[in-house]
Amino acid sequence: MPVIQNILVVCRTEPRHRIMLEEALPEASFTYAGPDSASEEAVAEADAIFGNLPPERLKSAARLKFLQLNSAGTDGYTAPGALPDGVLLANATGGYGPGISEYMLGVLLSLCKKLHCYRDQQHRALWQPLGEVRAVAGMTVLVVGLGDIGREFARRVKAMGAFVIGVRRRGTEKPGYVDELRLTEQLDELIPRADVVALCLPGTAGTRNIMNRGRISEMKQGAILINVGRGTALDAEALCDALDAGKLWGAALDVTDPEPLPAESRLWNTENLILTPHVSGGFTLPETHDRVVQLAAENLAAFARGLPVKSIVDLETGYRKL
Amino acid sequence: MPVIQNILVVCRTEPRHRIMLEEALPEASFTYAGPDSASEEAVAEADAIFGNLPPERLKSAARLKFLQLNSAGTDGYTAPGALPDGVLLANATGGYGPGISEYMLGVLLSLCKKLHCYRDQQHRALWQPLGEVRAVAGMTVLVVGLGDIGREFARRVKAMGAFVIGVRRRGTEKPGYVDELRLTEQLDELIPRADVVALCLPGTAGTRNIMNRGRISEMKQGAILINVGRGTALDAEALCDALDAGKLWGAALDVTDPEPLPAESRLWNTENLILTPHVSGGFTLPETHDRVVQLAAENLAAFARGLPVKSIVDLETGYRKL
Repeated sequence: MPVIQNILVVCRTEPRHRIMLEEALPEASFTYAGPDSASEEAVAEADAIFGNLPPERLKSAARLKFLQLNSAGTDGYTAPGALPDGVLLANATGGYGPGISEYMLGVLLSLCKKLHCYRDQQHRALWQPLGEVRAVAGMTVLVVGLGDIGREFARRVKAMGAFVIGVRRRGTEKPGYVDELRLTEQLDELIPRADVVALCLPGTAGTRNIMNRGRISEMKQGAILINVGRGTALDAEALCDALDAGKLWGAALDVTDPEPLPAESRLWNTENLILTPHVSGGFTLPETHDRVVQLAAENLAAFARGLPVKSIVDLETGYRKL
Repeated sequence: MPVIQNILVVCRTEPRHRIMLEEALPEASFTYAGPDSASEEAVAEADAIFGNLPPERLKSAARLKFLQLNSAGTDGYTAPGALPDGVLLANATGGYGPGISEYMLGVLLSLCKKLHCYRDQQHRALWQPLGEVRAVAGMTVLVVGLGDIGREFARRVKAMGAFVIGVRRRGTEKPGYVDELRLTEQLDELIPRADVVALCLPGTAGTRNIMNRGRISEMKQGAILINVGRGTALDAEALCDALDAGKLWGAALDVTDPEPLPAESRLWNTENLILTPHVSGGFTLPETHDRVVQLAAENLAAFARGLPVKSIVDLETGYRKL
């Protein structure tokens, strides 16, 4: 059984969260700091770390046995040599789905009902109907990526009356929250069927530019694109071209490449594009913050007691081990 | 059996709608016009009218036996003497619920996720998180008015994980789409429990100013108010005061009093107020337009054949007869 004496917490915590952690491991000693402000000594002494310590700082973590990220994304932690040998890596999948999926439904409905355009009119005190809107009920929604976030979004949009096609890397047993299950390699034939393409993908080599110019051009006339995974999944120039050409009804991006998005980017001003500064997840929702700390407390306690840890990351793929 | 020879259609129709109507009553003669442009002669000759002919024009409708409105609201048609004696009045309840309830969920999620504020920031190319957001899951939502619209909204928000309290005038058998059923007279004790108060009420004497200053002041700190029924249901000045004081998280209004809203109204500029120009219903959704014409075709055919007509309006209450 690994000895877990010193735990370094670089994830932001409220007093209620510190109680949760310390009650889960009464025998351990906790140090709280920021990812950058944590002392070299605290890193060197840590048996376990909770939070996204910058990967370059991990080299100093000589005693580290377990790293619990506070994010679902594992970018930077799975590269060869990023982690000291023998360190177990877990992410915070499961914490973000409920919050991000509500955001996704919110931007989808905003686009469908033209709420972004009405917001602009409101500032000009303009009482003017803007014509036809769209219904989510009856739409075909392609959810690309069926992790925690994609799954929760699929559930919600299905409850609204959409026909949901879920796309994942592998597995063929259709879960109840989608109407149809497909594999990533079938993406090209699925895109032309979709009224909505929703990308909920982690940032891995396999997802880079997955929604490239060719695939955007194969989208249905009047379709909608949503991206909440990583900005790198999408050809942003091709998306702007498709919106400018009136091919798409609209798009919503919570992630861009790079972030923060430079002020001169074309994305800011493209019509019918809703842009938010990577806020669909994070700890903007208090319930998410609580869930992530709860998961960390359970995992730290389990690891210290030699029990199974949840959401271990496969360093080969960057995904959770199944 | 009433003889229905001449049918005047003043509801906007597309070619597909005219086919629906004419196939339902092949024996009748149809005249299509606008509510104001319809000739005096066409009104005088009409055995049945489909669409909201201005109430003052109904005096000339000497042969009228059946009036099928294209709206759910019946304002102006139920006043004593508004309709010639013996005319059966039906509204278009059932046609608008799916569309308006999606609008309602859209503005609720926009408020929860601060999408209106992010929209404003987007125009300034500002990449800046705006802090805490809210989740619909776990909220207590008070749906005031359980007609077609309230019912459909209750269904959707319950599927999102909210606890739904439905309020109606009468009846005690709790339908499955709410968690709790209450009567209008219990409103005062319910308002302080609600994270969201959603008004889906017709414009009747009983609903006028139902959300008055006192009731707005009894709302929970940080609650949200939505109104899609009639602008008269709400004290708009009191709402603006509550928003300015930071008592409410936000509000969304698709209806105002008067409409169009004058440019100098305080509502346009009040922070965290989303304002749209009475567009959640109407025929902005093609599916709604189809549903309403379908209902009219069925009702006209039923009436002509002496069969039961759907959604007959009780002239005493302005509501559908149960």
